[in-house]
Amino acid sequence: MTESVKGKVPSRRAFLKGAVAAGGAVAGAGMVRAAEGDPLITEVQPWASGFGEGVDATPYGLPIRFESDVVRRNVEWLTADTISSINFTPIHALDGTITPQGCAFERHHSGAIELSKQDYRLMINGLVDTPLVFTYADLERFPRENHVYFCECAANTGMEWAGAQLNGAQFTHGMIHNMEYSGVPLRTLLEEAGLDPAGDLSDKWIYVEGADASSNGRSIPMDKALDDVLVAFKANGEALRKEHGYPVRLVVPGWEGNMWVKWLRRVEVMDGPVESREETSKYTDTLADGTSRKWTWEMDAKSVITSPSPQSPIPHGAGPLVITGLAWSGRGAIDRVDVSIDGGENWQTARLAKPGEAKALTRFYLDIEWDGSEMLLQSRAMDDTGYVQPTKEALREVRGENSIYHNNCIQTWLVTPNGEAENVEVS
Amino acid sequence: MTESVKGKVPSRRAFLKGAVAAGGAVAGAGMVRAAEGDPLITEVQPWASGFGEGVDATPYGLPIRFESDVVRRNVEWLTADTISSINFTPIHALDGTITPQGCAFERHHSGAIELSKQDYRLMINGLVDTPLVFTYADLERFPRENHVYFCECAANTGMEWAGAQLNGAQFTHGMIHNMEYSGVPLRTLLEEAGLDPAGDLSDKWIYVEGADASSNGRSIPMDKALDDVLVAFKANGEALRKEHGYPVRLVVPGWEGNMWVKWLRRVEVMDGPVESREETSKYTDTLADGTSRKWTWEMDAKSVITSPSPQSPIPHGAGPLVITGLAWSGRGAIDRVDVSIDGGENWQTARLAKPGEAKALTRFYLDIEWDGSEMLLQSRAMDDTGYVQPTKEALREVRGENSIYHNNCIQTWLVTPNGEAENVEVS
Repeated sequence: MTESVKGKVPSRRAFLKGAVAAGGAVAGAGMVRAAEGDPLITEVQPWASGFGEGVDATPYGLPIRFESDVVRRNVEWLTADTISSINFTPIHALDGTITPQGCAFERHHSGAIELSKQDYRLMINGLVDTPLVFTYADLERFPRENHVYFCECAANTGMEWAGAQLNGAQFTHGMIHNMEYSGVPLRTLLEEAGLDPAGDLSDKWIYVEGADASSNGRSIPMDKALDDVLVAFKANGEALRKEHGYPVRLVVPGWEGNMWVKWLRRVEVMDGPVESREETSKYTDTLADGTSRKWTWEMDAKSVITSPSPQSPIPHGAGPLVITGLAWSGRGAIDRVDVSIDGGENWQTARLAKPGEAKALTRFYLDIEWDGSEMLLQSRAMDDTGYVQPTKEALREVRGENSIYHNNCIQTWLVTPNGEAENVEVS
Repeated sequence: MTESVKGKVPSRRAFLKGAVAAGGAVAGAGMVRAAEGDPLITEVQPWASGFGEGVDATPYGLPIRFESDVVRRNVEWLTADTISSINFTPIHALDGTITPQGCAFERHHSGAIELSKQDYRLMINGLVDTPLVFTYADLERFPRENHVYFCECAANTGMEWAGAQLNGAQFTHGMIHNMEYSGVPLRTLLEEAGLDPAGDLSDKWIYVEGADASSNGRSIPMDKALDDVLVAFKANGEALRKEHGYPVRLVVPGWEGNMWVKWLRRVEVMDGPVESREETSKYTDTLADGTSRKWTWEMDAKSVITSPSPQSPIPHGAGPLVITGLAWSGRGAIDRVDVSIDGGENWQTARLAKPGEAKALTRFYLDIEWDGSEMLLQSRAMDDTGYVQPTKEALREVRGENSIYHNNCIQTWLVTPNGEAENVEVS
């Protein structure tokens, strides 16, 4: 595929009349049109001469009808039933870093249950001085914290191990969302039950499960449980949505989404891990020699270009083009993102919208002058541990092609001169 | 009202069995219940034995039905018509800092119009080398930035000048929201039209107007226009909602919401301000002597306790209680928030969830042991300019009681032993 690619970094044309602002590269327009003859400028339009909707029209608002395509989507052939399935965040159409709850991906093992605050109970039991049961109102009495974290399903990009499969960033990388959580540190609740964090807890684990039929039980080493795990009840300011675990979910920063147990019912302190279904037959990574990696909790540094991409083609010809995407790492903050338009032969350092935050999405931009020729777009994330996102080839060398989970390889989009993009593999 | 208040800072009881975590004060529970006899613990519940909803159920989700009270609300008697009116963010029920678009307050002068991206045009004219007209697709070709900013209506808390009026933080302080915006700096577009930021622009202004019938025109000095004003198309990652100016609104960080023109249609560079209706007969502050302050753009430092509050009473008796609220300043970042439970006689410094960010909401918490007696709750914000939020009395001394806008005084909630709260005035 690379042979046909003629993309290169275009030289920047001098098109700005004024001085160029300091800081990020300023790509000008050149696409500006005159007002003459444009009835949208010269004639009074209906929206400027009539009244709009009153403030009582929508007590809780939804996106405008023109954005009806910007929704979660599932892939019918992927699973036998939508009750144990996944849908995908429309990351190709979003900007910034926050994911609205309404379009943040869902993964259920036995469907999204409806559980009221009145019916909610959280038990802490096992190796604690005092087993405890909390109501929702109890939880609200403990000191809270707020943090923005990404949640990525371990299977995100999982269909791509064997080659380019799904045509769109939503489907290849959309099992991710990024929200501001408010909740109580799990550490606080464990201490309330009499766990002494000053004691020797190095061999202790917790087992967490949800109130849904699957229970989705997972083991978490005590170090992590006492570090940054949150028992969360709000996301992006408001109550968790039903599909995100209302009224309470676990937030396990940087670790695979399956551990972020929804409708959190029980936390048991144990002498070791349970080795449950969700951490043996699932959420392990089968290597080329048939053995499996387990306890692969941390999400490695990863990135994807969200636009242009197959669902977000370039709507114009050559000239200024904003290339943008997301980067993240479960091990820390994103330090740098590089972008290539020629399939990895040459790299340019992208502009981060803000300094990377630990275990949260980072938005990057590269503002270029597109010469209108074919491009092989790639992005490559680096985190503050020094880790560099690998190529698919490099990842296959160590992991083979049998894995489902933890595919964090560099993604490639082929952009054709007409602005359309498709999911391709560079070899 | 103060005579009846017996509230004081309660001594902290030792109720934690384990060690207390370093850092923020840890208020324990003491409200924990045994599992015996609680059928929610001892019996299998329907949500744990059946299936929930599939991932195709709601492509774009809404809050769960149990949260149907957490919505924007308008006040019928406040305005003659809902088309030129306001509704209020349910801040009493939110946590964290991000406001979801769906429940973020709206203010319209002639209703929320429906304007498609295809029909959208933005003109830059006046004292520029080259008047320009941009389509929506044009705007997407300029380098973008992301910032979280609050937007507060100048009239927020406006009904409180003469005394305690509206019973609830949603109504007294809910003309505010806080979102992550993605957009193009206005400076970039002005430069594209040939404005030279290196030239002498000290006497230049811009006049901005929207595409709705009201047009809501406002003058902005050039210094601000070139500083941090954004031409925004996304909020919290997704397209602006119709009621927030889809497809494009102006973001004027730290300045009164009326200047954040929605459905942005035109930016004219001028030799002086227009002195439009919205900056003469409205959005000016009439003082006691009958003269009016004008150009009162910046929103002064302010805070409010969101819970407990009249719409968010304490659902339990004495013991651990989380007091929480929001603080903000249009002049910079929040440095510190103090909380009083005795009407301002004694103050405790609250815990900020994160270091304050400039021109964005800051969440604060004070974790106390409530002794169950009456409290007069107040919060007092300080920003990094050294400014301290004033009492209502102090504000009235300099502004009188004729103003509508820019009431940033300290708010008082009377909390009674049964946990209910009401809007009161301390004198």
